[in-house]
Order: sequence, then structure tokens, then C-alpha cells
Amino acid sequence: MMNNKSSSIKAHLNPDERLDDLHRNNYRIIQNTKKFCFGMDAVLLSGFAKVLKGELVLDLGTGTGIIPILLEAKTEGKHFTGLEIQEESVDMAKRSIAYNELKDKIDIVQGDIKEASKIFGPASFDVITCNPPYMNNSHGIVNPSEAKAIARHEILCTFDDIVREVARILKPRGRLYLVHRPFRLAEIISKLSTYKLEPKRIRLVHPYVDKDPNMVLVECIKGAKSYLKVEPPLIVYKETNIYTDEIYDIYGYNREGGYQC
Amino acid sequence: MMNNKSSSIKAHLNPDERLDDLHRNNYRIIQNTKKFCFGMDAVLLSGFAKVLKGELVLDLGTGTGIIPILLEAKTEGKHFTGLEIQEESVDMAKRSIAYNELKDKIDIVQGDIKEASKIFGPASFDVITCNPPYMNNSHGIVNPSEAKAIARHEILCTFDDIVREVARILKPRGRLYLVHRPFRLAEIISKLSTYKLEPKRIRLVHPYVDKDPNMVLVECIKGAKSYLKVEPPLIVYKETNIYTDEIYDIYGYNREGGYQC
Repeated sequence: MMNNKSSSIKAHLNPDERLDDLHRNNYRIIQNTKKFCFGMDAVLLSGFAKVLKGELVLDLGTGTGIIPILLEAKTEGKHFTGLEIQEESVDMAKRSIAYNELKDKIDIVQGDIKEASKIFGPASFDVITCNPPYMNNSHGIVNPSEAKAIARHEILCTFDDIVREVARILKPRGRLYLVHRPFRLAEIISKLSTYKLEPKRIRLVHPYVDKDPNMVLVECIKGAKSYLKVEPPLIVYKETNIYTDEIYDIYGYNREGGYQC
Repeated sequence: MMNNKSSSIKAHLNPDERLDDLHRNNYRIIQNTKKFCFGMDAVLLSGFAKVLKGELVLDLGTGTGIIPILLEAKTEGKHFTGLEIQEESVDMAKRSIAYNELKDKIDIVQGDIKEASKIFGPASFDVITCNPPYMNNSHGIVNPSEAKAIARHEILCTFDDIVREVARILKPRGRLYLVHRPFRLAEIISKLSTYKLEPKRIRLVHPYVDKDPNMVLVECIKGAKSYLKVEPPLIVYKETNIYTDEIYDIYGYNREGGYQC
């Protein structure tokens, strides 16, 4: 939880990369503005997920490592692993972790979510987080090898692949935290139930209180009984360009601006 | 939709019964304050359900007939049927329908939801509504034959019974409208999906904007593809004892009071 890094550490930045302040423990993250920057969904997931002292945490499809870095800052988890298939993202994530002096707390592993149970073995994590590709229609994508397309569309793995692997690598009673799009919520809940990852807590994220939600946060417990807590709506804006207090709190800074692409 | 009843019609009221104004078409409903009166859930379901001109509508577990009476007032449906197992409720519903001169628009049938497909035959309705018993734990109920207990607990039928029968008696592409408790939402969605009653629209009802929801409204379409629209939260109170404008609109009266037990 403590950050002792010397301000003398320099991040190694490639062209088009920048170093963004995470407003947590003085941590920063390397992002490439031409490729894929993390969004509010990753930040909200890191606020929704609960990690207890001593727990082992895995983030599936970690991208630049935003979720393990935020969770390391916010929780007392023992160790965090990020699995990412794209080499360039893995490289950025590793450089961010080195910059933040978190090499003994966070590992980034390059690999395929579809192989996660082979990579990590069964029942190896207390908590798994995932901000998966939302879109299940990848027809007609101009460049399916592009980093953004892979992060947003189910090109390299489907939701079923993710849930199947999570069911294997979570410990009994382990917890899965997901962020996804509400339009897929019925499918998500059915699929999670099929794999005995019981949805226990849900929160819908609405841009405004009178608008449809555009994100849903889901907590599941492996092998739990069916009983769902639906939380109050998480409202993003109280008026145009002004976040609600809760959003500012989750971001960890005081109303002075954002750090998205 | 039009109501031509003469004000000279007198309702036949038994002891403990009263005649409540529904604020729609001058319709009234007979309720027994010592047994079971309809709640906000039935009213919200009648506001959430969509019935098109000429459609045939069935309400499962209709109680005193509140949902068919409200839907007859609010929509251009061709005909409405209410199925109810409890003789006393059936009797009250029939007297309310006679009082409102709706005998040619609404039928009340005494029977068991578990037998609905035998009673009505397959693919016989465009729309089915249901405000089912919410509680799936009926252990230790002092009097399981009491009207309130039967309406609130799964004593005479389970959620699976309801969904199985709905899947049979809805026409292809027919619509199911449910109100239920959010704590059962994961189970509900999984069960509906199993029976190919695809959840297409959901709305959560929160007492206040910062409180957990205590009801969920669900629209399903038989045989539809998976794509869910989650609507903005329906907020009941803007402050203590003062409904939001939307709730007043659904109730159909202007802020002068309620008509629940």
C-alpha cells in the first residue's frame, strides 16, 4: 500500500506514449494515446471490487495493467497478476509496474485468457477481475488485429471462454468482479449461473439519473446460493461535465480534471 | 376503454370489504382489508406492461383482478382474462367486474397456475402479466392456507411452474410482464432464458434514488434474441411521503392520496 519510490525514477516512454497520474499513491501509468487507453469502466470496476487483506488477485485481459495497479493502491491484497495477450500492452504494463516500484506486488503475464486455467492451474486465486470485450458482433471490423478492436470486440475470446476459465481458476467461494454492458446482462447472468458463478451483487451505472445505464458492475461468488443484492444506481454526472461526488471519490481526486484519452 | 356505467349501480360488499377508487375511467375495486389488498407492485406492473390494440391478455394469479381492470382502462387490448386459485378472491374480482360493467371485456377464471396450459391451451395469449408470490422460503408460515400467505409465498406454485406454463400459453413472440423482488433477479433471468422467454426490458424500482431497489419489472419476448434494455431507475419518493411525478402519473391521480390498504 505504501509507495516509497524516489521521484528520480524516470519512466521509459516510447513515441505516442504518455505518463498519466492515477491520483493514488503517486502511481502513474503509461498509455499510448493512439492505441487503447483505459476508460471509466476500469476505474469503476476497481472501486466496485473488494479485495481483502492477504488475497491473491488475477485480472484477465489487463491491458496496460490499470486494474492491478489501482487495486494494489486501494486494497491490502497480497499479490496481483495481470494476464494480457497483446505484447505491446504487456510491455507498457511492465514498464508502469517498474516505474511504480511494484515488481514484488504485481506480475504481468503474457498469455491467452482461453488458456488461463492451464497457465495458472485450478483454484489458484481468491479474486478475479475482468473488463472484457463488450461487443459480441465482430463482423466487418476493418482491422481485427488492431489493439482497440481486440480490447472491445470478442475477437480473441468470448464471454463463455472467460467464464469457463474463471470457474476453473477461482478458489471455492472465490469472487469474480466484472464490468460489462447492460444490453448483455441477461446473457451474462445466465452464463454465470451455468458455471456456478452465482451473481451476488450488481450495480448499474447511469450517465444521468434519468438515462439508461451504459455499464453494469457484477460480483459473483463461486458456488454460492442464489441471492442477489442490487445496489442503488451509480450516477456519473450531476450536470453536464460535472461528475457526482461518488464518481470523484472513486477516481480519487478532487474535481480538478480527468486522465482519460 | 369507455365507461358508461350508471352511477346507480351498487357494489355488493361483504363484511370487511370496501370499494376503492382506481382513478381510471371511474373504475372501482372491491378489496378486503383483512385479507389481501393489492400493492404498488400491481400498479407499477400495469404501467410497465404494453398491450396493443386487439391483443389478448392473461393475468396469472390475478387476486381481486386489479391488473386486468387497470389494463382494460389504460390500453386497447381486445380481451383480458384473470386466473386465480382462491375462491374468495375470484368472487371479489367478479363482483368488481360486474360493478364496472366489464363482463364482456374481462373474464375471471378460477384455477391453478400449474394447470394454465391445460385450461387455456397452447399459444393462446399475446400478453401475459404476473405479480407472483415473491418469497421462495415458505418454511414456518403459521397459516399456509391464509390468502396473504398464498399471495406472497410460493406455497401453491413456484416461479418455475409459472415460467413453464407461460412458455406454453404465450403465442410465438408473445410478451410476458413480471414484477418481482430484485434479490431473485439472477434466478429469474436464468429461468426465463431456460424457457426461451428472453428478457428484453428491465426496470428497477428504488424507494429513493440512493437506496437499493425493492422491485424489478421485467419484459420478456418468447423466442427473441438476447438483447436487454435496462431502463432508468424508477424512483418512488422524492422526499418522505411525497411521490415522484412519475409515480403520480402511473397511479393516475394528482397528488391527493393513495388507495392501498
